Amino acid sequence: MNALVDLVRARTPLVHCITASVSANLVANTLLAASARPMMTQTRAEAPTLVGIADALLVNLGVLSVEALEAIPPTVTAARAAGKPWVLDPAGVGAAPVRTPLARRLLSERPAVIRANASEVLVLAGHGAGGRGADSVDTTDEALDAARELALRHGTVVALSGAVDVITDGERVVKVASGHPLLTRVTGTGCSLGGLVAACCAVGEPFEAAVTASAWLGVAGERAAARAAGPGTFAVHLLDALADFSEGEIESRQTAVD
Amino acid sequence: MNALVDLVRARTPLVHCITASVSANLVANTLLAASARPMMTQTRAEAPTLVGIADALLVNLGVLSVEALEAIPPTVTAARAAGKPWVLDPAGVGAAPVRTPLARRLLSERPAVIRANASEVLVLAGHGAGGRGADSVDTTDEALDAARELALRHGTVVALSGAVDVITDGERVVKVASGHPLLTRVTGTGCSLGGLVAACCAVGEPFEAAVTASAWLGVAGERAAARAAGPGTFAVHLLDALADFSEGEIESRQTAVD
Amino acid sequence: MNALVDLVRARTPLVHCITASVSANLVANTLLAASARPMMTQTRAEAPTLVGIADALLVNLGVLSVEALEAIPPTVTAARAAGKPWVLDPAGVGAAPVRTPLARRLLSERPAVIRANASEVLVLAGHGAGGRGADSVDTTDEALDAARELALRHGTVVALSGAVDVITDGERVVKVASGHPLLTRVTGTGCSLGGLVAACCAVGEPFEAAVTASAWLGVAGERAAARAAGPGTFAVHLLDALADFSEGEIESRQTAVD
Repeated sequence: MNALVDLVRARTPLVHCITASVSANLVANTLLAASARPMMTQTRAEAPTLVGIADALLVNLGVLSVEALEAIPPTVTAARAAGKPWVLDPAGVGAAPVRTPLARRLLSERPAVIRANASEVLVLAGHGAGGRGADSVDTTDEALDAARELALRHGTVVALSGAVDVITDGERVVKVASGHPLLTRVTGTGCSLGGLVAACCAVGEPFEAAVTASAWLGVAGERAAARAAGPGTFAVHLLDALADFSEGEIESRQTAVD
Repeated sequence: MNALVDLVRARTPLVHCITASVSANLVANTLLAASARPMMTQTRAEAPTLVGIADALLVNLGVLSVEALEAIPPTVTAARAAGKPWVLDPAGVGAAPVRTPLARRLLSERPAVIRANASEVLVLAGHGAGGRGADSVDTTDEALDAARELALRHGTVVALSGAVDVITDGERVVKVASGHPLLTRVTGTGCSLGGLVAACCAVGEPFEAAVTASAWLGVAGERAAARAAGPGTFAVHLLDALADFSEGEIESRQTAVD
Repeated sequence: MNALVDLVRARTPLVHCITASVSANLVANTLLAASARPMMTQTRAEAPTLVGIADALLVNLGVLSVEALEAIPPTVTAARAAGKPWVLDPAGVGAAPVRTPLARRLLSERPAVIRANASEVLVLAGHGAGGRGADSVDTTDEALDAARELALRHGTVVALSGAVDVITDGERVVKVASGHPLLTRVTGTGCSLGGLVAACCAVGEPFEAAVTASAWLGVAGERAAARAAGPGTFAVHLLDALADFSEGEIESRQTAVD
């Protein structure tokens, strides 16, 4: 099924990222490690124009600056008009008074993939009140029904991140068993997964892209953990492992769920 | 005296940080290494609401974006109304025309702790003209009287950072002898200390919180330096050492001063 | 010819950087590794005042936030009025609708050095349409004539980055053969070179400053690559190597071109 890792490396897609300032550096370095290329422009004056030269767009609502808030809607519109796939990471929806309604509005703009944790998926589906900060307080299993519903309703793929990632388009469901707890001790690893999903969407079909990206980051996380003495060394080895990742690893980690 | 390290690990407090963009990533990763959880929202539209789900607030005036300038006063007000402790890091006060008067106004909002270098303390106390950029041009000893005065006048704790850190509430004075010169070769280690102080304030009394956080970062810095070949490897090992830190180290580094 | 590395270490110049948010942390840490000191203020309200205490200014147009856009012109004016050298890094000019005309206007403000890749130089000289994102699609050789023309027309030095860096003031041309492909797998290494050029301009003549900084980063990149297992470990070792760099390395890497 998966040749997307090699395709990303061959085509080095340009991924436009409007993303949380706190982790923009890790998102960019994750894309570079994966042989994709980041572009981080996020003003209303430039982002809608520049998305035209990109191969995919990531919109991550974490932190959500004033300028990102203004730039996101016209940039998503421009990406769609140009036929570029875009990925929504509704980071922090729930209690947040601005990004929560924004995320709901963006659902109607047909994201190729929604990358979110269980709390965020429940909020988007109308079932929950959200997590606390970047952390989910719900489990992936609880959120699976909500994810299927969300995917069907909006014609999208939901990549539900957790101890085991679950990817669904509402009909197909694949579980990806990979990852390591140290991924939660480094800021922005979830945002980076969003970036990888966008890179894979630039070269392949969204469902496969989400599965590939989840395994790519998860397996790289396991390898990094094996070499790490804590969260600092882990983050460094994670980038090395993303760059060194081999395609064959992916197949063995995924299980189709009927 | 100190069980706050273990309490931070047990309770994983959510620390809302409005902080300098250049080092926001290190502040967030420091908190995660310490088992606390960062939230970095900094717009006027969201920060005053979201601080309500946090356990403590860090306000760092470094860089000071337009949006942080607007968000800080209502977020501090909201934090106080909700009974959350907040920490002021008046980074760069002195020559800076906006953050200097802002820092002075914020003093009346009863920060639990002020984390600052000698130059910044002298400016806040009305005795100095400030440093150059992030660097102090005054020594900790010169600033101790100013720190005591500032603490008494505003009913707060001053954590004066230097080669030896000095923590005072105006009456008690404790010196914490730890740290390493490489801490000054990585951007944002001072900001990260502010974050750690806030995390400790979420689970304990401000004076003890400032002492604990100073020793936590300082001893971790020593350990990281022992493994480092320069400022790059140092920053990485610092995060590992923060995560691996053991409570017992703190007591031996502090000296009460009468 | 080169004693600038040692002069930077002796004088620890304060370098004011208005630079892309995604890589501001790396720029600051590069300067600290080089024993210079970063200041990252970028609002119109503070930057034009604070540049007065700096020794040099870096203006990097990457990402280009709304607040940087407003702050750059008056800060450049203030730097010039105070006799501080400033470095222009026209990151991303070409397709970008705001930064491209801004970069052209800034050319008349006599930057000491323009640090750019081949595509950006061609755009500034009026010969090209720009790259895609941070990447150049033109080669350094194609851009050399444009660089000479640009340097002569604006009385500046152009530091053209590529597999081999070329520095010219329009008459003199020096090639610096150093560097490693991993430098292109970490976000912001080009921005960091701009910061190093500014630090060297604070203590020496612009042409020599650009040559020194190019060799400093390039040789450090080679050393880091020798110790690295991928882009993550590379970025860490790069900072160590910048701090550990020895002056003697520079001479051997440069070739005057007549």
